[in-house]
Amino acid sequence: MNRRGRARESKRQQRLAGGRAAHPPIGPGLTGGTYRPLSCDDVDRLHDAALTVLEDLGMADAPQFLVESATARGAVHGSDGRLRFPRSLVGEIIEGAARRFVLYGRRSHHDLEISGQRVHYGTGGAAISILEIGTTNFRPSLLTDLYDFARVADQLPNVHWFTRCLIATDLPDPLDLDINTAYALVAGTTKHVGTAITVPENVTPVIELFDLAAGGTGAFAERPFCKLHSSPIVPPLRYGGDACDTLREAVRQGMPITAITAGQAGATSPASLAGTLVQTHAETLAALILVNLIEPGHPMIFSNWPFVSDLRTGSMVGGSPENAVLNAAAGQLAAHLGLPSGVAAGMADSKLPDVQAGYEKGVTTTLAGLAGANLIYESAGMLASLLAASLEQFVIDDELLGTALRTIRGIEVTDETIGLEAISEAVLGPGHYLGSAQTLALMETEYLYPALGDRRTPDEWTRSGSHDARHVAGEHIDELLANPAEHLDPDNDAAIRERFDIRLAHL
Amino acid sequence: MNRRGRARESKRQQRLAGGRAAHPPIGPGLTGGTYRPLSCDDVDRLHDAALTVLEDLGMADAPQFLVESATARGAVHGSDGRLRFPRSLVGEIIEGAARRFVLYGRRSHHDLEISGQRVHYGTGGAAISILEIGTTNFRPSLLTDLYDFARVADQLPNVHWFTRCLIATDLPDPLDLDINTAYALVAGTTKHVGTAITVPENVTPVIELFDLAAGGTGAFAERPFCKLHSSPIVPPLRYGGDACDTLREAVRQGMPITAITAGQAGATSPASLAGTLVQTHAETLAALILVNLIEPGHPMIFSNWPFVSDLRTGSMVGGSPENAVLNAAAGQLAAHLGLPSGVAAGMADSKLPDVQAGYEKGVTTTLAGLAGANLIYESAGMLASLLAASLEQFVIDDELLGTALRTIRGIEVTDETIGLEAISEAVLGPGHYLGSAQTLALMETEYLYPALGDRRTPDEWTRSGSHDARHVAGEHIDELLANPAEHLDPDNDAAIRERFDIRLAHL
Repeated sequence: MNRRGRARESKRQQRLAGGRAAHPPIGPGLTGGTYRPLSCDDVDRLHDAALTVLEDLGMADAPQFLVESATARGAVHGSDGRLRFPRSLVGEIIEGAARRFVLYGRRSHHDLEISGQRVHYGTGGAAISILEIGTTNFRPSLLTDLYDFARVADQLPNVHWFTRCLIATDLPDPLDLDINTAYALVAGTTKHVGTAITVPENVTPVIELFDLAAGGTGAFAERPFCKLHSSPIVPPLRYGGDACDTLREAVRQGMPITAITAGQAGATSPASLAGTLVQTHAETLAALILVNLIEPGHPMIFSNWPFVSDLRTGSMVGGSPENAVLNAAAGQLAAHLGLPSGVAAGMADSKLPDVQAGYEKGVTTTLAGLAGANLIYESAGMLASLLAASLEQFVIDDELLGTALRTIRGIEVTDETIGLEAISEAVLGPGHYLGSAQTLALMETEYLYPALGDRRTPDEWTRSGSHDARHVAGEHIDELLANPAEHLDPDNDAAIRERFDIRLAHL
Repeated sequence: MNRRGRARESKRQQRLAGGRAAHPPIGPGLTGGTYRPLSCDDVDRLHDAALTVLEDLGMADAPQFLVESATARGAVHGSDGRLRFPRSLVGEIIEGAARRFVLYGRRSHHDLEISGQRVHYGTGGAAISILEIGTTNFRPSLLTDLYDFARVADQLPNVHWFTRCLIATDLPDPLDLDINTAYALVAGTTKHVGTAITVPENVTPVIELFDLAAGGTGAFAERPFCKLHSSPIVPPLRYGGDACDTLREAVRQGMPITAITAGQAGATSPASLAGTLVQTHAETLAALILVNLIEPGHPMIFSNWPFVSDLRTGSMVGGSPENAVLNAAAGQLAAHLGLPSGVAAGMADSKLPDVQAGYEKGVTTTLAGLAGANLIYESAGMLASLLAASLEQFVIDDELLGTALRTIRGIEVTDETIGLEAISEAVLGPGHYLGSAQTLALMETEYLYPALGDRRTPDEWTRSGSHDARHVAGEHIDELLANPAEHLDPDNDAAIRERFDIRLAHL
């Protein structure tokens, strides 16, 4: 075979293997919005009811700094200790909030432009256990697992950023945990990352580590490549003390904020879906007020993540259709205000990468994206209602998110795509479209080819070993983990290790 | 325990078991339409392009009876043999077509009201193999399999009708096949059914069998409980001779028609998604013309089912995101014309009830329903790109369709569901919503509880045996097949067996 033949064959093999095309049909930042679970009138009523809640009921346990800055802007701190926000103040805060910004990667091709209804999928979560590959066994999650997830995330095209998805349960000390979590993120991937920080005083050392990773003091502030995941609200309608202080410190040091409200319908928010949206939307607005009174216009993802209770048992549910519509609607409410939104999807209740996990994840992630939420968290790797993470599920989810992205891209209708000429040529000519100029031109750009998904006939599939999708994913994981991660300059790595107690062995 | 205690306990058990509530949150006929893959302008352009195709290119191989009736109404039969339809004629046909009708069950509580964007899920297909329960083995599908599928369908709440989903490959003779297929349907379920009929002369005996099943001559015509699945179009843009004749006979005898157009993008329809929609929409309009020129206003499901080719191999693909958006868009195009629509979804390419099947099915069925298609075919039991059927997958799909239906129901926004009073009471009272009056009132009506899906913690799940969803489905199938089907009056059954060569053993 000559060189040209080899190139052609290589391209053919790449296609057969589902390799990425030169002009892939999908990518980060496709525009959603074709799914609108709420009518315009619904949106207005829910937002208005949320404003009523903030005005009449307000929030308990506001930190003193917020009481001072909010009352100076017209909020009322009642004798019952609740801080009430007049409609006009909420309106001013929304008006002044950041509407578009970049979430930086450590390499610029990973930068994410957050605006409009541009959709991105990524991770989130705080799993405490790992489903071991090829088994039904769960074990506590460790720092090395987080590093493995980070370097796999780095290689998955449809995971657009990586927030720590599990807790290193081998690190009980909060500073050890925060520092080593941050280290595992930057050692594993150059994509935009996210993490939680346990206490306010840990913000400075974490950012110091990021500075060292990026080459020196001030490097992080220039391109803040990590957002803080913070839960400054304790539903129903209370601020959470320490979390507010940590958030304030992170804002001051320039970290973008994902301020998460996670009421659980039927437990900490109303059983009625509409009522839950009213409360959680109000609470996320309360977080927006908090951030914007600390620093007007600071980059914040308006992260209204409605969870659901199974009312038979009280336990948290992540993969239900109620989760799907609630989070899609939460995205729609944020979009109505022009605020960058974050929602949660992909939180399967199943314990395994099985058919249940497949539809729970497929439906929730696709609807969140079609609704045009900007950042879709928890969308890869999670099982067991967020209690567990799985590497096999992680790579399967990457493929599933490709599917979701292709639906978001949708159908372009132009004279060229309608292509009356192409129809006429095929009908009056060969009677089919196989190998036509149009077909060849669109082959790599109009269609998504699965990397793991099986499209063979039963006979072909049987002859190759009758493997299910989980098995195929397990083999793919082996390949991905075998690739070296080279995301820290050795000098920077050495500087980090000199300054901090890093528990990951030398890479 | 006294009687009241037992009743309460039984209700509790039923809830825990995911039993159906008195006011279930879902059912047949929920209204879709919140997902709109096409803009209004896109819809107008695609429909207009389809009218251009029918006017300029027209259809080849029109049967003589159609040439005569169509040219009498202004169509032009060209010297190239193509029958061209002017825009005005197509407009008149659409105007006069049936817009709402009932698809009858053999029992009236199974009647389906087809109108607006009311959504129903059911089966379709012509699988030739069966995935054996608990294995990775495929074997040819048999008449007894069809009967098993029919009686399981009868018991699945989210399978709203049952079209034969597999071919009894043990019956090579067309009359044997058509008669015994019809028999297996009515012996297995009283839901609305559907079947194909091989040749025109088999229509009369099939309807004779239906009359005998329903109690005598003319009984079927009074409440036609079976629709014909017909493919009168051979893409691109040709009528198919025999199928048109069979369709004509069925229309004359009062069978509702599902006229299916199934172009395969990249092979028999354009590789461009927009181009495929133009062609398949035009072809389904050509079927509408055919039916309405035989009998104006005859009940027809406008069944534009765009399929997709994997352009690497040419093979048919059913579970791709391109399938999802194309079929949702096909439903939207039909709704734009006010025509009862049928689309295809749930056609997994996976060979097993695994995570791949889960997301392929979850995404395609949910988007078709949210788009407001009236009848969603192929939505349960199918695997391997329609080549195979699986009973385990059938019951899993029933649950998955429940999920889809719950998303279609969506979120009701009223003063009562917003419930500012309930929020105030919880926030100023106990600080949670557990056990509140609103929570108890909504427990059975707002939430769907899975019958098979697992929501336990990893620990609870491990203690109970670590089963995946397929295993649980297999156990459920055993229970369903153990229930006797009593859908034929013994006298009617005897009359059928006297008149026809029935190959199913006495039930």
